[in-house]
Order: sequence, then C-alpha cells, then structure tokens
Amino acid sequence: MSKLKSITTPPSQEELSNRLEKLRILMAQQNLDYYISFDPVNIYYLTNFANYVHERPFILVIPNAGIPKMMVPLLEKVHVETRARCELDYMSYYEFPAPEGKNWYDYYSTLIEDDARVGIESAMPIGIAEKTPGKKIVTDIIEEVRLIKSDYEIGRTIHACRVVNKGHKVLLKVCRPGVLEFAIYQETTGAMIKKIIADLPNANMIVTRVVGAVWPPKISHDPHKVPTIFQEMEDGGPHVSIVSGQIDGYGVEVERTFFLGFIPEKAKSPFEVMLEARALAYELAKPGIIMSEIDKAVRKLITNRGYGDYIIHRTGHGLGITGHEAPYIAEGYDRKLEPGMVVSIEPGIYIPGIGGFRHSDSVLITDDGNMKLTRAPEELDDVIISL
Amino acid sequence: MSKLKSITTPPSQEELSNRLEKLRILMAQQNLDYYISFDPVNIYYLTNFANYVHERPFILVIPNAGIPKMMVPLLEKVHVETRARCELDYMSYYEFPAPEGKNWYDYYSTLIEDDARVGIESAMPIGIAEKTPGKKIVTDIIEEVRLIKSDYEIGRTIHACRVVNKGHKVLLKVCRPGVLEFAIYQETTGAMIKKIIADLPNANMIVTRVVGAVWPPKISHDPHKVPTIFQEMEDGGPHVSIVSGQIDGYGVEVERTFFLGFIPEKAKSPFEVMLEARALAYELAKPGIIMSEIDKAVRKLITNRGYGDYIIHRTGHGLGITGHEAPYIAEGYDRKLEPGMVVSIEPGIYIPGIGGFRHSDSVLITDDGNMKLTRAPEELDDVIISL
Repeated sequence: MSKLKSITTPPSQEELSNRLEKLRILMAQQNLDYYISFDPVNIYYLTNFANYVHERPFILVIPNAGIPKMMVPLLEKVHVETRARCELDYMSYYEFPAPEGKNWYDYYSTLIEDDARVGIESAMPIGIAEKTPGKKIVTDIIEEVRLIKSDYEIGRTIHACRVVNKGHKVLLKVCRPGVLEFAIYQETTGAMIKKIIADLPNANMIVTRVVGAVWPPKISHDPHKVPTIFQEMEDGGPHVSIVSGQIDGYGVEVERTFFLGFIPEKAKSPFEVMLEARALAYELAKPGIIMSEIDKAVRKLITNRGYGDYIIHRTGHGLGITGHEAPYIAEGYDRKLEPGMVVSIEPGIYIPGIGGFRHSDSVLITDDGNMKLTRAPEELDDVIISL
Repeated sequence: MSKLKSITTPPSQEELSNRLEKLRILMAQQNLDYYISFDPVNIYYLTNFANYVHERPFILVIPNAGIPKMMVPLLEKVHVETRARCELDYMSYYEFPAPEGKNWYDYYSTLIEDDARVGIESAMPIGIAEKTPGKKIVTDIIEEVRLIKSDYEIGRTIHACRVVNKGHKVLLKVCRPGVLEFAIYQETTGAMIKKIIADLPNANMIVTRVVGAVWPPKISHDPHKVPTIFQEMEDGGPHVSIVSGQIDGYGVEVERTFFLGFIPEKAKSPFEVMLEARALAYELAKPGIIMSEIDKAVRKLITNRGYGDYIIHRTGHGLGITGHEAPYIAEGYDRKLEPGMVVSIEPGIYIPGIGGFRHSDSVLITDDGNMKLTRAPEELDDVIISL
C-alpha cells in the first residue's frame, strides 16, 4: 500500500484495465470463455459507466481476451460513451420492445457461441439469464475482485470519508432538542452536496447520494425503522446518527451514539459495553484473522456483559463502490481479512425502552492492522453535547 | 372509472386485498400454488412496504390462499411492520451471512413444498431463483395486474402529477440564458419536495425521488446524455425539460421543448412536426387500439415529414408505481390499450446541430379516450419564453 491520499480524479484507463485483468485471472481459473455482467454496480466498476436498471437492458459481454462489448439501447449509446473510460465495443439495439428480430436478445444471442462456457452473476435476473447463450456458470467473480481495493480506490474512499466527516460535523452542530429530522437531513446533506460539487464538479449523480439522519432515543433501539421527517430530537439520549453516502461511486459511512445535554443513568453501562466491544473489534481487525471470529468474539464480550439479547446485527460489512457489500464481519463468513479491504466496524446494542448504541466507521485494513478513515467524536465525554 | 380526484392517503387494506385477489386470479389460470416476489417494486405494490435490494434478501411468498408470508432479516422486521398495510405473516432470519443452518435460504426452503408449482418474476436474481424450492415457472403476473390502475392508484397519480406540474412551473420561471443546470435542479426539486412534505408528511422517502433538469440546445438532440451540473442555459433553443418523480411511490413525468427569447428558424419545422406527431398519438390513444399501431403511425408521420432518421425512441411507456414500466407504446408491443392504463405520450425528434423536440405528459386512458394528467405550456407561442 502506497502513501494514502485523497483522490478526486476519474479512474485512468490503466486502473480499469487492471480491474479487467484481475477478473480475467479468475475467469481463466474457471475456464470461462465469457463473463457477462448485468449488475449496474459491476458494470460501473469495470467501465466507470453507471446506469439505472430499467426495461431497456445494458449487458457487458467480457470475452477472455480482447475488447469487452457493451450491448446498449440506441438511445443510450452516447451516454455510455461519455462516461465509460475503458476500451469498449458497442452493440446497440433499436428499442424496447422492438419489432420481431430487432429486440435486444436477437442481437445478444449472436455475441456468444452456443458451446461457450459463460460466467454470470448471481444477481442476474432470470429473464436475462434465460436469454444468455452458452453453458452458464453462476459465479460472482467481479465481487471477488472488488474485495481488495487498489491505491486509486482507497484514495477515492478517503475522499468520500472526508465528505461524510463534514456532514457529521454539521449534524452534531444542528441536532438539538426539538429540532426536526428534516432540518437535520437538509443541513447535513446540503453541506455534503456542496463539498461534492466543489471537489468533483463532474460527479456522476447516478452514483451519488447522501444521507444524514438521527434516530432519537424514542426509536434508536430500532436501527432500521426509518425516522419520519417530523421526528423530533429529544433531551438526553442515546441519539444515533447515520451519515453515509455514495460519493461519485464510492460508498462510506460514519455513525455515532450521542447525548444532548446529559446521559441518562441507564444508558451508561450499554454505552461503555459498546465502546468495549468496538475496541475489541479494532484490536482483532488485522490481516489474517477469519472474519467470523471477530463477530464471535464481539458477541461473546457483549453477552458476557449481560447484553447478549440485544444484539441484532453483525459487527460490520464491506464498503467499496457501494455502501454495503462483501466482505462481511459476520458469523458464517469464514474468510480472512486482507490488506486493502475496507469495512465498517459497528457492533451495536439495542435495548427497547433505553435505546440504541452503535458507532460506525469506515475502516481500511492495512498491512499490519487497520486505519479509521472516518472521524467523529467517540468517547463518552465527547459525545455528550452541551446545550 | 369514478370521478377523478387527487388522493394523498396511504392505501387501505381493501385496496391491497383487491390487488392480491387480482394476482390470485392469474395464479389460478396458471395453476400456481405459490407466487414469489423479490422485486421491491412488486413487493411495494402488494404490501406498501418499500425496501432497497441489498445482500439481506426480502422475499414475499404468496400462497394461492391464506395470508402471504414475508421473509425478512430480523433487523428489518419492525421496518416492514411499520409500513406494510396488508395482512402478513413473517419469517425473520438471523443475519446475512449467518452460521450454518441459520441462513435465509435454510428458512426459505421450508416455506414451499418440493412438488409445488411456483411462479417467479423474470427480474428475480438467479441466485435467489436457485434457492427457490418447487417447480419454477417464470411469469410476470404482478406486472400484469399493475397494468390497469384502480381508482385509488389513479388518485395517487393525479396527486403526483400536481407535484411535477408545480416543479415544471418553477423550472420555466428560473430557466434563463446563463443559468446553471444545478440552480434549475435545486429550485425545481426544492419546490416539489416542499409540496410533498406539505401534502404527504409521512411520505416514504425510499420511494420518493424528484428530478428537474433541462437539456439546453447544445445537448438536447441527445436525450439520454445526462447534463452536468455546470451546464449553462442558452439563448434560443430548443431546450428540453424533464420534470419527473416518484412521489411516495407513484411515478409521473412532464417534459417540454421550449425556447428562451426566440425560436431559431431551423427549429420551426421539427417543432411543428413533433406537435403534429403528438396530436396524432393523442387522437389514436383510445381503448382498443393495439399499442404498436400508435407507434407505427407516429413514426410514419414523422418519416413522411422528412425526419424519419431522427427518431430514436418509442412513442411512450407506462407509468404506475414506477416512472418506466409496461405497457409500451412501441413497435413490437402488440397489446391493446385499456381504460385505467397510464402512459407517457412523447414522440420525439432529435437532430444533431439543431436539437431535440419532445413534449411528454402523463396520460390516463379513459373509457372513451384519454386525459392528460400533467399540465404545462404546449403550443409554440406559449413555449417561447420572453426574456
């Protein structure tokens, strides 16, 4: 890993070629003649072109050698050409639907030989898979390549973290008792969007979205109950913040448990246990450890402290060109951490009637340990906001 | 069709039961014991619960009688319960990934008998389809049900149209030569969001998004080349606007070709031909006509006027709980229009060096014709904005 620095430039052709080459090594291991990508996330990773999935399919056909071919609706060809930054051939089709013989699948079927071995994504819709010629093998090798980040990707992730750091700073300034969710959302996302525009004037808005929200104590025990826009902030806590985003294609998050004015007595112990569990996760998160072992150790610690019934999610998940992806720091995920992985570390405790306790950061696994890329107050004294 | 009025309330349990009953009629026709929905759009349609697809699957298992069962990650159960407005049973699973025997597919496989006939969506990821028990039949019967709107859906669509109408009014006020794309986006979407919050304080933001943008003459010939935020508006035209949105789950659009100060001489004829093609489409868009016939007639008219080489898309597409769905007013789509369908009507002409020409409206097919639900200036005199 070279010296870490923030990057805001689009990927070079070389960066994208390297990704393709890594994919082709995995294709060769499985004797694949082609790999087909339909998942817009994977197409973005390989080409820098982002699309919404709708009824007009975009399909990237990657032969084991030579230039990949993108099948696109005629209407979208210039859009792809504008954003893609790798060598691509195109096969454009008329429209969807189209007169007989001119539909996308009429062209698609000519691109691949019937006896070819063709890798496809597990996310591929069955309706596309059924039209895919050749002997199909479901294998998520692009996700595999995406697990380990290049220096370029790390640089983009560092930049994305600076954006959410800024958002979180604003969030802690505006979050006061009585303030509505919507005001927090507006102020926080507004600040992040301003920074994105300043830093990345040509940002691709299809892969840019920012979120800034707080779960006040009334609902913080329930981390996936989305707050309404009129949800009011309260005295005390625990409040739990989420500031996350996909910043021109790079997903990160920073989340904090904090208190307005004071910490209720009954929140003290779970907060401390959460910090302890988190410290353990950081201590363990080094290259070579099996990820499920981290989750098991964290669960054990929380259980030993008496809060085992209040664990409702894993310790962390991967980050990359999305905000939620492999690898997973979870029981059942028996893969080793490696340098260049980026993960969230966020053990949580959720107690109905008391509230939720979770800090989350975006963390790079380095050659000998880990490095937090997001920054926000952590310790109890720093997360009790004076009013 | 009853009297048309704007509706902003969530769907009643009866509305959702009716949708389910329509689905079950189609299930019976295909002798399906179960239908499985994974597509978040279809799950939203049947339950009013909206989710993002990520690595933790949500799967709706619909037996041919009795209460449907939603398989959800433990973490999300309360989220589903908060939003779903139909009767549902739940099967919640531990986490993704999970220890052996506790993964989602371990539970999923117990919900369906091996000899059952099971309908699945063509959009279902092959990785989910492979874990689906029973004899699988790919059949998009929920899309089929969605084609014809209930009075409730029409009422929600009318409300959504009022939101984009407001956005478009603001857009025409702020769009002046030299103004940047970003300012137009901010003003237009800001006005729409304000209206959404006022009208629907409990709007579900997962299915709410608004867009307000203008393709200035430099790029208006290329309708799917997304403008950058620093794109500048110009004198003259054609400028082409897009104001669209999914408003608490109902997708609509209004788009206009307009001119700032004056219309360039060479834009006059294509503008008039576009209006003529559009008038023809409205004249034809009545219950009983085969949709491809409309598209063919429109293409023929444009071709006869000398602009056949400048058609790059179909005449229209369906609208509903998304902004792009079946039915399609397109060659190759040989289904009849029916009362209760909602479609865009938007024949377009795109000439490099001159620009793009397209008006789009969200249009309800009525018992004896059609009714535009969006409203914005249409005729030449009204779309030349005085400076």
